[in-house]
Parts: sequence; structure tokens; C-alpha cells
Amino acid sequence: MKCSAFIATSVDGFIARPDGSVDWLETAGQTDVDLGPQADMGMNAYMASIDCIIMGRKCMETIAGFNLTPEQWPYGDTRIIVLSNSITEVPKHLKETVEIYAGTIPALLTQLESEGYTHAYVDGGATIQSFLNLQLISEITITRAPIILGEGIPLFGPSSQSIQFKQAKAVAYTNDFVQVHYHVSYQ
Amino acid sequence: MKCSAFIATSVDGFIARPDGSVDWLETAGQTDVDLGPQADMGMNAYMASIDCIIMGRKCMETIAGFNLTPEQWPYGDTRIIVLSNSITEVPKHLKETVEIYAGTIPALLTQLESEGYTHAYVDGGATIQSFLNLQLISEITITRAPIILGEGIPLFGPSSQSIQFKQAKAVAYTNDFVQVHYHVSYQ
Repeated sequence: MKCSAFIATSVDGFIARPDGSVDWLETAGQTDVDLGPQADMGMNAYMASIDCIIMGRKCMETIAGFNLTPEQWPYGDTRIIVLSNSITEVPKHLKETVEIYAGTIPALLTQLESEGYTHAYVDGGATIQSFLNLQLISEITITRAPIILGEGIPLFGPSSQSIQFKQAKAVAYTNDFVQVHYHVSYQ
Repeated sequence: MKCSAFIATSVDGFIARPDGSVDWLETAGQTDVDLGPQADMGMNAYMASIDCIIMGRKCMETIAGFNLTPEQWPYGDTRIIVLSNSITEVPKHLKETVEIYAGTIPALLTQLESEGYTHAYVDGGATIQSFLNLQLISEITITRAPIILGEGIPLFGPSSQSIQFKQAKAVAYTNDFVQVHYHVSYQ
């Protein structure tokens, strides 16, 4: 099945501050600009293209910390699988929404495929890195907020292989966020 | 005087491999694509806009290592000032081309201004970081090669302040390099 990532970073490549906070995503750029039909910066079209979400524990905990109401929940009723070997229970208010998976990533994908899933949204820095190292991410969309954080949790980490991108696309939104989209080419 | 930067990085934000090498700049992306009039990816227009170059010692040493012929030299006869407190002499074959400066950056800019210079090209990761920390870079162009290096020398380092970018522009070249241009906003 296809696996892709759609993630926001700072210009210096961090997905969160060192403590995991993503407050800067709300305050960076021209917050008073009305992007009109582009206000979601491609998120709705992306969500319509995927049929399940695979995220890391930390990513899930960040989202849990937002205490979103059902109306604010951005994932609709899309199935969400949280990869974790360290927890067996999800935060109470997410019990109906997410499930924990403790096996290997290839086994998970085999299982999802057998259930008819075709396109997974891979979320969270560590999880995206794991999928890249397994050569499983085929497309990545990076939306860079126009800010330098200086430190934080990086999207990309040390990897044992050289990963090349192709079919680059880029758009600068009028709020000064820049979104790039690549297909991933494993050597 | 205006100071700006025009620099290439990997998608994960490195300007060079850990040993300083930039071989990947030549091999990343679609190397067989003819970019036509865009082949310089904006470098010629940028060079025409600046009247002096301020670079760090390591940056100079990287360039010195290329052993460029006068025909290959990309900076024309533009004045090049190398910031260094550790060396007093430049490599022999660059003696006619670059000069060493050991004072402070603000004093250098005052001197250059008094000599009529108006726009400095600031080059090298450490030097760009120093200028950013002094709130002296007003525009930055980052050309991202479509490759993940995993490790290397980062363009941006830990900075004590939050730097915001504005007036974002982006272009994806057909060789899959993506170039962004920002004005820098210091809070």
C-alpha cells in the first residue's frame, strides 16, 4: 500500500519545540491573511486521498494534549493506528478514536492491505524517519512555517542511506508558508 | 548597507557533509535536465545585485579546495572579504582574490559603507548565523537540493531569538531543486 507524509516544519526543519509544543504553527507568518479556498493549505485534499493514519506515540500525545472537541477533530472518522511498544492504553478521551499497535511496520502494512486499505498517512517525526529508513514513504509534503526555531525535534534524523527526492513542486502561500511536495527515490 | 544570503542546502538543511564536502550539489536532482535560461538558478541576477562578498574562513577553504581556474571562478572581480581570527594568510592561489578581516562585523560594515559598498553577499553557515544573530541579514535565498544527507553542517544553528520570515517566494526547478526567498523579520 502507498504510504505518504504531510507535515509542517519550521524553516530550520523542526516539527516541534524541544518540549514538543507546536504553538509557533499558529503564530508564524501572516496570520491576518485570508487564504480563501487555500486556507487548509492542501490538507483537505490530502485527507481525502488517504484511508488510514499511522502515527507515533509522541505525535498522538501531542494531539491528545490539544483536547480537541469532536468538531475540532481534524481526522474525521479516519482509522488511526498509534505505533507504540511502551503504552497499551491511549488517553481516555481518545479511546474511541485511536488504537495502539505494537508489532512491526511491515506486518502492520500487510494487515492493513489485507483489510483493503490503500493509502496510509504517516505522521510524527520518528515514525516518518522509521518509514523512510524502511523505504516505505513514496511521497512527502512539507509545509514550512516562516520561522526559525533554532532548536527542537527535527523532521529528518541521521539516516544510513542517501534519500533523493524527485518531481518537486513548490508553492508559497500568501501567509508566507511554503509547501513542497516530492516523490521519494530510494537508491 | 544591505546584507543578504544566497545558499544551497539539502532538504534536511545541511550546507555540507560533516567533512565539508558539497559533492552532492552536483549529483542531486535531475542532472540531465536542461534548465535553459534558468540553469544558474538565479545566481547571475543575485551576483549582479551585490557589490561585495563576506564569507567565513571555512567557506573560503571549501572554495579554495575546488582549485578553480580563473574561467571557473564564479565571483568575477567582486571584492571578497574572509572573516577569520585564526588565519592571517589565504591560500596562495587566492592571494589576489580574497582578503582576511579579523575585526567585528559591525565595524566591517561601517568600513565598507564608507567605501561606497551597498549590498553584501554573506556566505558560509557560521557567518550567516552570526549575521542573523546580529539582525543584519535582510533577505535570504535558500536553494534546496532534492536530497536528504542525514548529517552535516547545518545552515541554521541554535539562535537566541525567534526569527520570522516574510514575503515568501518559492520556485521548483525542473531538476527538482526548490528555491525559496524570504525577507527576514527580527522581533
